[in-house]
Amino acid sequence: MDEQAVRQLVDALPAGVVLTDPASTEAYRRDWTRAEDAGTPLAVVRARTADHVRAALRWASEHRVPVVPRGTGTGLSGGATAVEGCLVVSTEAMTAVEVDPVTRTATAEPGALNAAVKAAAAEHGLWYPPDPGSFRISSIGGNVATDAGGICCVKYGVTRDYVLGLDVVLPDGRLVGLGGRTIKDVAGLPLLRLFVGSEGTLGVITRVVLRLVPRQEPAATLVAWFDSPRDAGTAVVAMGARTRPSMLELLDRAAVNAVEDFRPMGLDRTAGALLIAQSDAPGPARAADLEFMAGCATAAGAREVHATDDPVEGEAFLEARRATGPALDARGPQLAEDVCVPVDRLPDVLERIQVIAGEFAVEIPVFAHAGDGNLHPVVLYRSEDPGSVQRARDAFTDVMRAAIAAGGTITGEHGVGRAKRAVLPEQLGPDVLELTRRIRSAVDPLGIMNPGAIC
Amino acid sequence: MDEQAVRQLVDALPAGVVLTDPASTEAYRRDWTRAEDAGTPLAVVRARTADHVRAALRWASEHRVPVVPRGTGTGLSGGATAVEGCLVVSTEAMTAVEVDPVTRTATAEPGALNAAVKAAAAEHGLWYPPDPGSFRISSIGGNVATDAGGICCVKYGVTRDYVLGLDVVLPDGRLVGLGGRTIKDVAGLPLLRLFVGSEGTLGVITRVVLRLVPRQEPAATLVAWFDSPRDAGTAVVAMGARTRPSMLELLDRAAVNAVEDFRPMGLDRTAGALLIAQSDAPGPARAADLEFMAGCATAAGAREVHATDDPVEGEAFLEARRATGPALDARGPQLAEDVCVPVDRLPDVLERIQVIAGEFAVEIPVFAHAGDGNLHPVVLYRSEDPGSVQRARDAFTDVMRAAIAAGGTITGEHGVGRAKRAVLPEQLGPDVLELTRRIRSAVDPLGIMNPGAIC
Repeated sequence: MDEQAVRQLVDALPAGVVLTDPASTEAYRRDWTRAEDAGTPLAVVRARTADHVRAALRWASEHRVPVVPRGTGTGLSGGATAVEGCLVVSTEAMTAVEVDPVTRTATAEPGALNAAVKAAAAEHGLWYPPDPGSFRISSIGGNVATDAGGICCVKYGVTRDYVLGLDVVLPDGRLVGLGGRTIKDVAGLPLLRLFVGSEGTLGVITRVVLRLVPRQEPAATLVAWFDSPRDAGTAVVAMGARTRPSMLELLDRAAVNAVEDFRPMGLDRTAGALLIAQSDAPGPARAADLEFMAGCATAAGAREVHATDDPVEGEAFLEARRATGPALDARGPQLAEDVCVPVDRLPDVLERIQVIAGEFAVEIPVFAHAGDGNLHPVVLYRSEDPGSVQRARDAFTDVMRAAIAAGGTITGEHGVGRAKRAVLPEQLGPDVLELTRRIRSAVDPLGIMNPGAIC
Repeated sequence: MDEQAVRQLVDALPAGVVLTDPASTEAYRRDWTRAEDAGTPLAVVRARTADHVRAALRWASEHRVPVVPRGTGTGLSGGATAVEGCLVVSTEAMTAVEVDPVTRTATAEPGALNAAVKAAAAEHGLWYPPDPGSFRISSIGGNVATDAGGICCVKYGVTRDYVLGLDVVLPDGRLVGLGGRTIKDVAGLPLLRLFVGSEGTLGVITRVVLRLVPRQEPAATLVAWFDSPRDAGTAVVAMGARTRPSMLELLDRAAVNAVEDFRPMGLDRTAGALLIAQSDAPGPARAADLEFMAGCATAAGAREVHATDDPVEGEAFLEARRATGPALDARGPQLAEDVCVPVDRLPDVLERIQVIAGEFAVEIPVFAHAGDGNLHPVVLYRSEDPGSVQRARDAFTDVMRAAIAAGGTITGEHGVGRAKRAVLPEQLGPDVLELTRRIRSAVDPLGIMNPGAIC
């Protein structure tokens, strides 16, 4: 790529939109996967409008430059890792959010934070449910690109369930509008759905229309301590059969201890697993849900069960759960898993992960959106010890294989990105992979969009 | 197509699977759209296994024969209308359903009726919510192919929201498995989502894995009578802002009268519109919902409001609603609309439809999943009067244009099929249409799948 072409791009866009100085572009090389082999971009377009994105993609198509789309860079699978000589297209500066209380929709630019959408909805007594752990710092565009999940999914679904409309800039620079403010729309192939979770491989999202729902009822909280993750998993399976908990989270002993190390809260460091469940059913149904779930915990052998209707106390437990990510992050270098299995396989897979940890002599604390069977084992390693690094990589792969063997998936909500790409063929098989490539080529015939992500 | 090729197909499959006798194939030429210009199939494959479907599609690919997939033929948009010289692949004989209560999933063959899935789930205290008007006679494969909706969508979503996994036979005869029993799965492009609502243009569904939820709480029912559809629409907008009704249906005067003619129930024939709302919130929240919704109805000028917690009385009103389809059907030849608009446009569009009816001198009774903004205007005509037929067609098109002008869609839950194909470009525009064709070609390079459907 010659400098003249880059100059053309700089000249085509307003001052400050295109960054080429390595000191400025450095911050756009990696997402939270912190890939060591990240490439160096030719330039970064910090788009302020959809037209900037269009100009960037037209330029990239003309010059056959790979494009890596990027929101706020909080992804956990390397979907926004720069490739050598690419153009990073960042939407972080496009942050407008508008709420229409009558249709109960929010229209957001892709760089708006998830938390900003929630806040804008709350001003009208409305609620945008999806709540990935990163919700305070991740962008709604990134949430859509990865089909982000979170804690409330067990009752309220994932990002996909709230996306009514998208504007997308296609690789050739054309902008298309898919869906809109209409709740139900089956006109034509469901292209809207194809873009949700496409991880920047089909285009760049420049506008999102989201469905909102009435504000959540206050939740009651149940905490239960178990001798083993298996017992906790057994309780989870029983709870879901009759209730719809609004939260059903699991921390194993190592995760509990990481939280206590990070922010002491008086959690029981000796228990094998902690379950935190909530019900936001209205009125007495909430208490009935809690009683039923407490019974499930006891029947599964819980050593202690505690229920509270006090929102402050409940919030404290929720914060313990929300602190798990940062607490484990503080433990140092790690490979973040995001496997998901059919719920009935939860007890087995929790146990299998401990076996894998033993086999590879690595620590794998686990926290989980247990009600969905979605596990976040975190494979810790010491970067100064090449043996430890390799063992962590092998364990990371083995955990994904265990999920596949259980009829599950290598990623429930983070995406494949580059971090899980090598194992994806084992899950999908050659025919689905080939179909994926054909569809990708149909949308992006030049193959410039996020090369190396997914497949 | 020579007879020898058809003979090959007959020989390749067990006796009785391939029908070629016109007396037998006649019943497979049309769906409920009753297209007069339906073609005559070369043959019908009445598949009993996925392998039969695979053999059929391999044969069709080899001989470049168009394939029209078909469930129980209850579609309302001509998606299963035979084209001349096609192979109809019917899955109506594949009817097995299995429920796994632990993972709360149902695995169904595509020909299983929606009602059979509901019944199988109910045996385990579980519930499959989607309930298209045809639920007693439509197949789950057809429901998935059209992303069918229904009455409960306003709270519980559409078919798409319950599909966890699909087996699909691709046009070349390969069978691929997409998704599975896992609740959350973002591994790879969301191909599963692309197939839900693809109307038989990408492949033939041979297995469906569905998410089930705990059984529904009993519902309380509100009925409210208004002077005009506009007033009823105003009430609908207000109700949705603070409650999540489990049903929110509208019948205009003509629809109410059609029901009374068909099955007298003592409905008020003089009112401009009837709203039927339900809440299935547990405990006292149910009564609170009804009180709030009654207040909305009164504020919007309802002339009569009646609430009941009696499930038998509630069921009677629900049956009035469910009778609307058959009652209007009994009115004779018709074009069934399925437009959907942003909810705030409901009052305007309801009024606009009456204006269109006047302009074209046709009757257009309307019933609606009002909470979703999803309207079913039914354009009646007299088939013996060519002028009436033409005016009905023009009105049918104008109603779709009114929905597009309101930022809505020409189809909320029935699909485009062949009946709405001509107007689809006005909604999607040339770029989205071209993208649709590119993706379709990527999956079906020979262009054999359901030609003429969607676009």
